[in-house]
Order: sequence, then structure tokens, then C-alpha cells
Amino acid sequence: MTKAVVLLSGGLDSAVTAYIVKQQCKFDVYPISFNYGQRHANRELGSAFKIGKEFGAVEDHKLVHVEASIATVLGIASTSLLEKSDSSPQTDGLDKGIPSTWVPQRNMLFLTLGFMYADSIEADYVFAGFNAVDYSGYPDCRPEFVDAANRSLNLARKRYVEDSHEILIGTPIIDMSKAEIVKEGIEMGVPFEHTYSCYYGGNKSCGTCDSCKIRLQAFLDNGIEDPIDYESVGV
Amino acid sequence: MTKAVVLLSGGLDSAVTAYIVKQQCKFDVYPISFNYGQRHANRELGSAFKIGKEFGAVEDHKLVHVEASIATVLGIASTSLLEKSDSSPQTDGLDKGIPSTWVPQRNMLFLTLGFMYADSIEADYVFAGFNAVDYSGYPDCRPEFVDAANRSLNLARKRYVEDSHEILIGTPIIDMSKAEIVKEGIEMGVPFEHTYSCYYGGNKSCGTCDSCKIRLQAFLDNGIEDPIDYESVGV
Repeated sequence: MTKAVVLLSGGLDSAVTAYIVKQQCKFDVYPISFNYGQRHANRELGSAFKIGKEFGAVEDHKLVHVEASIATVLGIASTSLLEKSDSSPQTDGLDKGIPSTWVPQRNMLFLTLGFMYADSIEADYVFAGFNAVDYSGYPDCRPEFVDAANRSLNLARKRYVEDSHEILIGTPIIDMSKAEIVKEGIEMGVPFEHTYSCYYGGNKSCGTCDSCKIRLQAFLDNGIEDPIDYESVGV
Repeated sequence: MTKAVVLLSGGLDSAVTAYIVKQQCKFDVYPISFNYGQRHANRELGSAFKIGKEFGAVEDHKLVHVEASIATVLGIASTSLLEKSDSSPQTDGLDKGIPSTWVPQRNMLFLTLGFMYADSIEADYVFAGFNAVDYSGYPDCRPEFVDAANRSLNLARKRYVEDSHEILIGTPIIDMSKAEIVKEGIEMGVPFEHTYSCYYGGNKSCGTCDSCKIRLQAFLDNGIEDPIDYESVGV
């Protein structure tokens, strides 16, 4: 069976991506999750492992700690998504350029470690729930970046040089709106109750940060209720 | 003054690269070194920080621990260069394809973290002592890889998207032979006594592993003695 590494954050996008890989591509899913010092690390990673369990991949579900590396090179104040940052991820608003929640080179770091994992298990794919629509401000969620990353990561591989074997980065939801992603997830029976999207990492989601707002609106657009608990509902 | 991040391993190649950046380019050097679980980590990183000191960059010399991340995704047996591997880095010989000492995606990981650091200090360059000649078996030391990595890492950057500001990866010794690198270093007064190249990480260098052999031959070719201590001399 074809093996596919899936970057699994615990959020809605990567959960839907993992289900597409399993149900539509019929690949074996090897999840990999990252603690990068995000505010919502514990809550989000708990969700990631609940979803990973669905794939029967508990042993092969990798958790990679990069929080210390990132703190060393970036400094803690650089992005509002990191737990130790003073700035708030709340205050962004959408449509205002690259949000403060963006973590420089995070996706390249994840893809690089994803490729390491993929080569170690002889996988043919690395899937990521990157989305260029709702967060169009993130430069490393664009197809142009994904293509360039795919090329450089393959050029660095032994099997590519010796046997022309290519690992493909799959980004099935990159051009979908959040409402379309939710619709796709509903059709596949994604356990949305196990996913988590809030930037704040509380037990209940805040309902008012950008990430909660986009998520709530997407469920609203599909005419169904989001199954997770919110403090308040901002849309 | 122009700022340049330099990947500094403690080896001969990155030391010469750092001196080129300082003396020939006249840039401010910001060293970054990595513990990736290499057999020779303590010895090599000690050398890296001795060389870093020459640039008066002690505070800004970053040490990034990626050994746990790499062990998680690769497994310890995957490459003979890692400390916990059972296989020996000794047994390779040269000219036999990609050596067992090669660590998959290591250079992409280093460049990614180097770019993170560069953006955090508004540097314009990331320099690396990659060399395609003596270790031609390493796929991620080739100019083709460096070009592709440069493109993808810039596409992921905020300042590239917003202001077309590009960070350039500099690899001044990529096409030089080891003898030419040593010659260049001698002319610039690189403190070779502080550098370390042995794969085994002993206090004295072994003198017989591939890395020691190439280094010794390069000094021999220049008609001068390598100032570091060897157990025995294999060339």
C-alpha cells in the first residue's frame, strides 16, 4: 500500500486533508505533528493525536519538538502565535496583509522534517493542509511556494539522485474555501468534534479570534452547527 | 553594515567560508551552529564557538538543538554520522556514491533555520560552506540544490512577498577542491588549529576516517603541516 506522511496539526484543515488521503487516495496515513511553541500546543496536539488514532497509526504518529529551535533563532516576540509572545493573536482582523500569527519558515521546517520522515519509511507523498484562500496572507501557503519546496526537497534526496524517485507534496485543499473544506469533511465523516482551531488554546474555543471566526462562518455556510464548545460566538 | 548569517560547524570548510564573508565581503558575521546528534557534536561545536569568538559574535552566535527532532523522524540507525548509530563512518571509502555519513535533508534544515535567524536580524545573506567537489556524493551540496532552496526559502518570506527583498545563499567554496580551500584559508590567516574535521569526535583526530584523510591530503598538497593533533596519519 502506498504510504503518505500527513502533517497533522489537530486543526480542521489537516484533519480533512488526512481523510482525503485515507478515503479518496486510499493511502496509508503516517501522521506527523509539531510542537513549535504555539499558544495552543497542548490543546491542538491533543486533537492531533485523537485524529491520528482514527488512522490506527498511533505508533507511527510522530511528535516533533521544534519549539526550542524556533525560540533560539526567532526570539519569542517575533510572532503572536507563539506562547511566550506578548502580542495578541486577537487583534489582527483579516484582509490586512500577512497576519501577526504567521511564523516565518514554519511550513518549510515542517515539510523538511516531513520529507525526512517520508524517506525513512519509504513513503511517496507528504500531504499538508495548506490553504491559500482564507489565509491568503501566508506566503508559504501558496502553490508557488509548494512547487518550489517540492523541487528543492527532492533535489536533496538520495533516492531522487540515484533512482529519480520523487516524493510529491500533496495539498488537496489549497484552493478550497473554508466552507468547501467543511463540506468535504462532512461528506467523509471527519470527526470535527476532535479538531481544534482557536489561537488561544483554552479548553473551550474563544469564538472570537480570527481562526474561530473563519471556522464558525464555514459551518454556518453549510447550515450545520460546529460540534466543538465555544466561550462565545463571534459570527 | 551588511549582516550575514554563516552556518558554522567547526570544520574547515565553514571556517574558511566565515573568513571569506568577513575579510573579502566585509560583512558582519552572525554564526549559527547545530547539534544534530552528530558523533562529533561536543568536539565540533567547541571548535565552532572558538571560531565564532574570532568574529566577536559570542552573544549572537546561535546554537540550535535539532538532535531530538532528527532522531524522532529519522530513527537512529539511518546514518553513520549520528552518535547513536551502530554503523561506522569509517568504512565508506570515497568515490562510492552517497556516503553513509550523509544525513537526509540536513542542509535544508540548516538553511531553513538559517533563514529564520536571518529574517529575525534583517540579514541579507545566509552563507554555507557547502562543497560539491570532495563530497560530490552529497546531493544537498550541489549548486542545483542551493539554487532551488534559495528560491523556495525566499518564496516563504514576508519581506520577499511585500518588498521583493531577497536573502541570498552564499556558497563561496562550493566549486573549490579541499587543497584550494586550505590555500584560501592560509592566505586569510584562518586559525586552522581551532577547526575539527574528524567523524569520530575524539580529543585527537583519528587521522584515518575519510574526513581526516581528505583534510590531511589538502594540507600535504599545500606543503604545510596541519596544526591539529592526530592519533595516526592515514595519508
